[in-house]
Amino acid sequence: MMTEEVTLTLGEASDLSLHILRDAGLAGKHAEAVAAVIVAGQRDECHSHGLYRLIGCAHSLATGRVNKTARPKINDTAPSIVKVDADYGFSPYAYNEGIALALAKARSQGLAALAINRCYHFSALWAEVEPLAEQGFAALALTPSHSWVAPAGGTRPLFGTNPIAFAWPRADNHPFVFDFATSATARGEIELHRRAGKSLAPGLALDPSGRPTVDPAEALRGAMLTFGGHKGSALSTMVELLAGPLIDDMISLESKAFDNELGAMPCHGELILVLDPSVFLGEALGKNLARAEMLFDAIIGQDARLPSQRRYEARLNSLRAGVTIPRPLYEELVALVKAPSEKAGAPDRRG
Amino acid sequence: MMTEEVTLTLGEASDLSLHILRDAGLAGKHAEAVAAVIVAGQRDECHSHGLYRLIGCAHSLATGRVNKTARPKINDTAPSIVKVDADYGFSPYAYNEGIALALAKARSQGLAALAINRCYHFSALWAEVEPLAEQGFAALALTPSHSWVAPAGGTRPLFGTNPIAFAWPRADNHPFVFDFATSATARGEIELHRRAGKSLAPGLALDPSGRPTVDPAEALRGAMLTFGGHKGSALSTMVELLAGPLIDDMISLESKAFDNELGAMPCHGELILVLDPSVFLGEALGKNLARAEMLFDAIIGQDARLPSQRRYEARLNSLRAGVTIPRPLYEELVALVKAPSEKAGAPDRRG
Repeated sequence: MMTEEVTLTLGEASDLSLHILRDAGLAGKHAEAVAAVIVAGQRDECHSHGLYRLIGCAHSLATGRVNKTARPKINDTAPSIVKVDADYGFSPYAYNEGIALALAKARSQGLAALAINRCYHFSALWAEVEPLAEQGFAALALTPSHSWVAPAGGTRPLFGTNPIAFAWPRADNHPFVFDFATSATARGEIELHRRAGKSLAPGLALDPSGRPTVDPAEALRGAMLTFGGHKGSALSTMVELLAGPLIDDMISLESKAFDNELGAMPCHGELILVLDPSVFLGEALGKNLARAEMLFDAIIGQDARLPSQRRYEARLNSLRAGVTIPRPLYEELVALVKAPSEKAGAPDRRG
Repeated sequence: MMTEEVTLTLGEASDLSLHILRDAGLAGKHAEAVAAVIVAGQRDECHSHGLYRLIGCAHSLATGRVNKTARPKINDTAPSIVKVDADYGFSPYAYNEGIALALAKARSQGLAALAINRCYHFSALWAEVEPLAEQGFAALALTPSHSWVAPAGGTRPLFGTNPIAFAWPRADNHPFVFDFATSATARGEIELHRRAGKSLAPGLALDPSGRPTVDPAEALRGAMLTFGGHKGSALSTMVELLAGPLIDDMISLESKAFDNELGAMPCHGELILVLDPSVFLGEALGKNLARAEMLFDAIIGQDARLPSQRRYEARLNSLRAGVTIPRPLYEELVALVKAPSEKAGAPDRRG
């Protein structure tokens, strides 16, 4: 008898991801970088950025738009700026290629910017800033997406979901990390509501005529709203500017047009700012990391949660017990392995 | 017959400000820098950062905590970092002293950080980033304040109102500028509601026992809330970290304790990040400034407003017709001129 969920070890989840990506034609280093980000998402129970994303990756590859063998080119633009031209490949390998120089610049200059251009970006931004905080840096990451979100006071899609992620190093704990969309909800959440036949909460979206709606299908055809009214809208504009025009890359409106209704993942740029507290602080580093801990203690001490607390708890569980996904999703993923070729069999199923 | 409002030219507003500040003992260069910021606030009809702030400045000076003759010390910390020790003076003069080196660093490195330490800060942050965008830079400014705001899910004050301001250069227009508190409302707004005997909108504050309240007096004794729930709370945490521990300065909780119930303006740090689009973009600068204009046009084109649009309209009006304040406020300000000494007379009153 089949159960409704399937549990995989992290190794099995990684193997499945690699099979799917390679069978879709993605070059080895890209497949490894993408699989690592996807397995990390599933491990932390960020389901919309976990194994589910392989469907979107496979579709994006099938459109022929993603460069499957892209070779990122590093441009040492200025003492505090490194740009990586991802050559229309997925972002994770480009990030891996460029980040070391960005960190070296932050160490010598105090802060540095890593701009990734012309990449297909789908990963959660926390996966890009958390490792930097693990190495002692503070980091801020921004990226536009496709024009799905109306500005405050407007009625039509213009901004992307435009996430902002931030990480801060902690000596004896996982880094402090947040990562949120400046849209009131994630587009993936609206899609999940549509698939589940559920209504949206009010205040998240407009229908195609610009009126508020709770119908996820109408919302997908209309416009999403930003979180926090005009403040979220202002932040979303900042994301467009800093991860678009500042780095010679597309705003979400252009990125959506560039997609030309193929439904691939957004192709655009990303900006990561890296700050080195040890350069800012010198001998005062320890005192000030302790000061930051005082802030975290005061948050936890009033029963509020730190932003990534749930994610770190999920990680602990996944490392011990593996990851669990709905069986229909698992079947859909396994079908992706078999479909393009017969060179790789489906991994074992475990109920 | 007295009217209920008083109109002053910008010159008169400046003279009044300088009188008050000098009579409170503030050294000349500080008084000039503070007056300029306050008049700019009044000019743009940011009333809580306008002439009204002179009352707070005078009180802060009267507490004896603000260093009236502070000499800011510039520390060229790293190729992309400049720190200014404000020596417990007001921030505007320290900003004026440090900003040129920060801009020079941004021009040569691509981006730079200006940290202002140990300053009494009261000005709107837009006044600090807008002039940078007028010179072609993008800029982001952050500062904590006093612990008045509860983290999402919490019940007690921890964060400051923690504003974030951002500016982007425009060739043929005022810069794109936003400046907002990460608290759901400004503390000054709650104070104005209390003075006016009005209830607050729901969702802005908690009473001292941690329950939601619309009573401004209870809110002032309890805790304000962040805008945008956990997202605003996360941003507020980032402001604490980047404009506190990263730059060896106090978090809002320490700043409040440092004040020791004297009710002076918050003493703390400020971080300004300056990015030079001409270094990021080189020959692609013009194309990308045009791309940013496409974004602004798309916002305005759907009848949404740009964040500082109202402020720029107010400015135009003030430059032509002067600034208008309630007569009771004017009387209170004039009393500040006379009170400490008789060396300066009250400016003419105009009804």
